[in-house]
Amino acid sequence: MRACRRQAVDATPVWFMRQAGRYMAEYRAVRAAHSLLEICKTPALAAEVTITAAERLGVDAAIIFADLLLPVEPMGMRLRFQQGEGPLLESPLRDEAAVARLASGPTVAAQLGYVAEAIRLVERHFGGRLPVIGFAGAPFTLASYMIEGGSSRHFVGVKTLIYRLPKVWAHLMEKICGVLEPYLLAQVDAGAAAIQLFDSWVGCLSLDDYVEFVLPYSERLVRAVEQRGVPVIHFGTDTASLLPAMERASASVLGVDWRIPLDEAWAKVQHRPAIQGNLDPAALLAPLPELRRRVEAVLKRAGGRPGHIFNTGHGILPETPVENVIATVEIVHQFTHHG
Amino acid sequence: MRACRRQAVDATPVWFMRQAGRYMAEYRAVRAAHSLLEICKTPALAAEVTITAAERLGVDAAIIFADLLLPVEPMGMRLRFQQGEGPLLESPLRDEAAVARLASGPTVAAQLGYVAEAIRLVERHFGGRLPVIGFAGAPFTLASYMIEGGSSRHFVGVKTLIYRLPKVWAHLMEKICGVLEPYLLAQVDAGAAAIQLFDSWVGCLSLDDYVEFVLPYSERLVRAVEQRGVPVIHFGTDTASLLPAMERASASVLGVDWRIPLDEAWAKVQHRPAIQGNLDPAALLAPLPELRRRVEAVLKRAGGRPGHIFNTGHGILPETPVENVIATVEIVHQFTHHG
Repeated sequence: MRACRRQAVDATPVWFMRQAGRYMAEYRAVRAAHSLLEICKTPALAAEVTITAAERLGVDAAIIFADLLLPVEPMGMRLRFQQGEGPLLESPLRDEAAVARLASGPTVAAQLGYVAEAIRLVERHFGGRLPVIGFAGAPFTLASYMIEGGSSRHFVGVKTLIYRLPKVWAHLMEKICGVLEPYLLAQVDAGAAAIQLFDSWVGCLSLDDYVEFVLPYSERLVRAVEQRGVPVIHFGTDTASLLPAMERASASVLGVDWRIPLDEAWAKVQHRPAIQGNLDPAALLAPLPELRRRVEAVLKRAGGRPGHIFNTGHGILPETPVENVIATVEIVHQFTHHG
Repeated sequence: MRACRRQAVDATPVWFMRQAGRYMAEYRAVRAAHSLLEICKTPALAAEVTITAAERLGVDAAIIFADLLLPVEPMGMRLRFQQGEGPLLESPLRDEAAVARLASGPTVAAQLGYVAEAIRLVERHFGGRLPVIGFAGAPFTLASYMIEGGSSRHFVGVKTLIYRLPKVWAHLMEKICGVLEPYLLAQVDAGAAAIQLFDSWVGCLSLDDYVEFVLPYSERLVRAVEQRGVPVIHFGTDTASLLPAMERASASVLGVDWRIPLDEAWAKVQHRPAIQGNLDPAALLAPLPELRRRVEAVLKRAGGRPGHIFNTGHGILPETPVENVIATVEIVHQFTHHG
């Protein structure tokens, strides 16, 4: 939490995106008995996998176990997860009528109360020893799934909707914000010490499109959360050219992937926010000496600047050996320890 | 050709990656009777689709119709194209022995003589009125297909091979260069006025990995071609952070995608090479007024600098209306005409 505010720390804090996930035997054991959505919607289970991962790894924060796509269900879309195929949304949005039919507002967000409840359980377990991070998908990334119906390579559906029906796009983004804002504030009320906004796929856009069609909505959510005194980690991948624009959304922390060296990331921003990143998650599959070299290279690029939070540049990959994740935490703490 | 050398031009030249492709009825008619590999390996057919596309669109260069992956066959790998699935390479490379078995050298490149022959036919057809662009996949992108066995999302196979077996990686890159160098020089001998080196997937790497594991090999190929007085267009996507390093390979032209505004691309390079790009290919699916706005936005970022070559930031998408591609050529020529 001190790093989010660019204050001095004993050692660089570290956590990982998708730190509770398929790469970990304890998680696979829970998944053997429950679907992904069951775990998300059962606060005791979501809290359990969150806590187990954080304790096993020795990280400095516990990100709540949830899925980016949970908000689409109460908005009126059907969501399925197919084995090895990623998420599938039925009847993806293609026109004005489909967007008009979507539900929005605090009553929709209230149906996601199980996430806040899981945060409450984790917060109670750690009793302040470890901060709990809440999260949501950012409006663009969520909209991209709702329009493409799943993951996408070229984002042709979302881009053509923006080009052809810019008012429908604006309406969709308003509706998404109308759910995400109360959803995130409920997570804050439940005890989230920080919020990460995942704009995972925003790097498919040009700078001009980002500024015109995405930034105002992300900014609205960042400001709503930060007004409560809770820092936002504003994360995206492929954002080397977007970073100065993303900074205008005024989050305390910018999360970047490995495609931009950390010293260049700092050089690109005006107000020196905290920066989170940016080990290539594939590096966690390297032999230990090579992994150590790569972790230290990230830390050298960070150069001990106040406000560095160590993380991977994207989620941990399923084939990652858990020992390598634990070793990374130790390397970061040892390398940066000041006392 | 003058733009490649940053000399003054009457109007900004324009061509498109994958300008002969599935979006065009004339191409689909040829494909109905022949497989992709048959077209590539029959110089008369490859020349026909190349010429038809260039003439239909009114572009300023004809890129030879071929496939990035052709060199893997004489190197000893089996290549298939599955309907809607992209390329599949059988027995992808995973260890030292597999790399050791690969063939390399001029005799391997000689088996790709059908590409040079097609270039000769196109060059003869245009008789100097339109330059013919030859091309190859850059060593990293080619290696990534050979290791992953096809397209990839996270490039985990290629990255872990680099981490675990850096000497095997170096050996693979040497073998690939040993084929690509004579392959590209044969294209030059056949009349290619410029060569594009497609490092389409290199943007998955961090800057440090690019410099250590990729740059020396790309540089070798660029220098071999440019020593013959033929400019190289060194293209990649997601290269915002890699651009200053890519420039060190010393190609006359850097090709960039839409993720980096063109004025920022120029600001990142020292020696002011020509720059090619960078309309988002999805913009070709926009209604005409919106397409015009987007084409003009690219031209405004280019700001009339000598050495701008207009192109999309990646290949034309199959669902693109051909009229929009033709309109784009006209917009670029009209907007930048100086006479």
